Amino acid sequence: MRSVCVVGLGLIGGSVLRAAAAAGRVTWGATASTADAEAARQDGHDVLDLASALDRAHSEDALVVVAVPLPAVEEVLRALPANVRLTDVVSVKGPVADLVRRVAPHARYVGGHPMAGTSSSGWTAGRADLFHDAAWVVTTEDDADRDVLTDVVDLALAAKAHVVPTTATEHDAAVARISHLPHLLAAVLASVGADGGPLALSLAAGSFGDGTRVAGSRPELVRAMCEGNRGALLDAVDDALGRLGAARGSLASTGGLAKTIEAGHAARRALVDKPTLTDLTIDLTAPDAPRTLRDLGARGGRIVALNGTTALALTP
Amino acid sequence: MRSVCVVGLGLIGGSVLRAAAAAGRVTWGATASTADAEAARQDGHDVLDLASALDRAHSEDALVVVAVPLPAVEEVLRALPANVRLTDVVSVKGPVADLVRRVAPHARYVGGHPMAGTSSSGWTAGRADLFHDAAWVVTTEDDADRDVLTDVVDLALAAKAHVVPTTATEHDAAVARISHLPHLLAAVLASVGADGGPLALSLAAGSFGDGTRVAGSRPELVRAMCEGNRGALLDAVDDALGRLGAARGSLASTGGLAKTIEAGHAARRALVDKPTLTDLTIDLTAPDAPRTLRDLGARGGRIVALNGTTALALTP
Repeated sequence: MRSVCVVGLGLIGGSVLRAAAAAGRVTWGATASTADAEAARQDGHDVLDLASALDRAHSEDALVVVAVPLPAVEEVLRALPANVRLTDVVSVKGPVADLVRRVAPHARYVGGHPMAGTSSSGWTAGRADLFHDAAWVVTTEDDADRDVLTDVVDLALAAKAHVVPTTATEHDAAVARISHLPHLLAAVLASVGADGGPLALSLAAGSFGDGTRVAGSRPELVRAMCEGNRGALLDAVDDALGRLGAARGSLASTGGLAKTIEAGHAARRALVDKPTLTDLTIDLTAPDAPRTLRDLGARGGRIVALNGTTALALTP
Repeated sequence: MRSVCVVGLGLIGGSVLRAAAAAGRVTWGATASTADAEAARQDGHDVLDLASALDRAHSEDALVVVAVPLPAVEEVLRALPANVRLTDVVSVKGPVADLVRRVAPHARYVGGHPMAGTSSSGWTAGRADLFHDAAWVVTTEDDADRDVLTDVVDLALAAKAHVVPTTATEHDAAVARISHLPHLLAAVLASVGADGGPLALSLAAGSFGDGTRVAGSRPELVRAMCEGNRGALLDAVDDALGRLGAARGSLASTGGLAKTIEAGHAARRALVDKPTLTDLTIDLTAPDAPRTLRDLGARGGRIVALNGTTALALTP
């Protein structure tokens, strides 16, 4: 079982470290936060300084997991030993891949993004089971290192997540729609509600509470996430503006909202009514494995187990 | 204790009938739905035809509660006996008040709207405790009949709701922001997510699930609610379009979303961090009581008890 070195021990990194340790891996970590380091040590984990942690990763041929915010990634990449097995858990994948190409082209990098989190942060907010039943995106570009691809899939499955393979670009476009735009719309809705004054807020019930919940997340984290995915988020915002503008036009001209409401209802059903899935095995060493994996992800499929280098997948 | 006649025995009307009966009132109902009538009778309630129910309301000087969808309100109003004590639980107040003025100007009408519901409908979806701790809007125009105003406040408190007094116009503006716009944005968000295909939906987690939840409600109910509040909803949509457009412009030009995200966070905190409340008593028979009550509602205050014709309120 591949050893795991986690750099950054906040909510996500701290949960990766716990999950890997719980799965029986040899694990250690590093963090720039004294508070996170102390808390992790008190919980019995091995926390080193960055240079020592990466040295050990080199000598034990471990998988290094970068779990720091996007602005701090470059500094970690500059400290990497040569040819290291590398993944990350940052919420955008294109910018991280660009940084790796520019700063650490020698690294054997396969990107990752576990789709889990809470509005809390720091080591103490983390849990070994944070990723249970969550999607863990693994980027599978054509030139992906197959060994490291297998390592990353194996780590995600060890954390009891399932793996959704796709490209960095497609990941960023998708999360703009299902994570970053929801945060932006929650902020807009909260402000429009508050524009109605204390009366409006005193009448708020289920729909407003649900629609604004993530506006309670820490603004600096939401900003970093949304601003870090600028291009893809602009596309998603334009789609939303177009649809909301069309609803406005229809309401003003005909008084009707049928198209908007019915399309939204159908889309929500597509989210909730899961399709029937069938089994599929994929040989991760096959020449066309990256494309086969990406096709799986594009269909809404996922990897749920690994037997050596053979992935067991479920596909709609 | 005032007897209660409920016309319309769906989710809301059926819950009003149950709550009033549970509070010890003499109650009976009427409904155009054979299924709701049979189910209510099986649960031990008295269900009459509309004419008989209204005759009985006249002879017992009961409070009539109109709990039918907006398009069916006019027919009920036309059947009312003269000088009846009248309220309603329809989700828009301006259009109902207009109908009463036009069709039943003799009725002693004070509008109401309990801010509770589920995505289910019909008698069987109702519950006696549906309104516990919910806001129940009571319209308090200057010419409000004080006797009926007291009846409606009393009924809402009997259902264990608290009363938020305001005008029909201000109610409709507020619910456009905190109920109708959330439904519209949920529909837009669900569609933008689905536009990302099966990959995007397979990555959807908390923020998308929360933000699209009410898009799962029955489309015909959502349409009736939103389309029935056209003018106020247009204002709320324009506010949302302006704020989302400003976010788009800022993201495109500077890459930053600070203003949008921080305003949304502050607004969400204003919703969640309830202010300290102080006691206030209001004499419902005082000449300026309607204005005093409306001021209370505008500040985010509410009536929580009634002692004769004296209301005990909590105000920020």
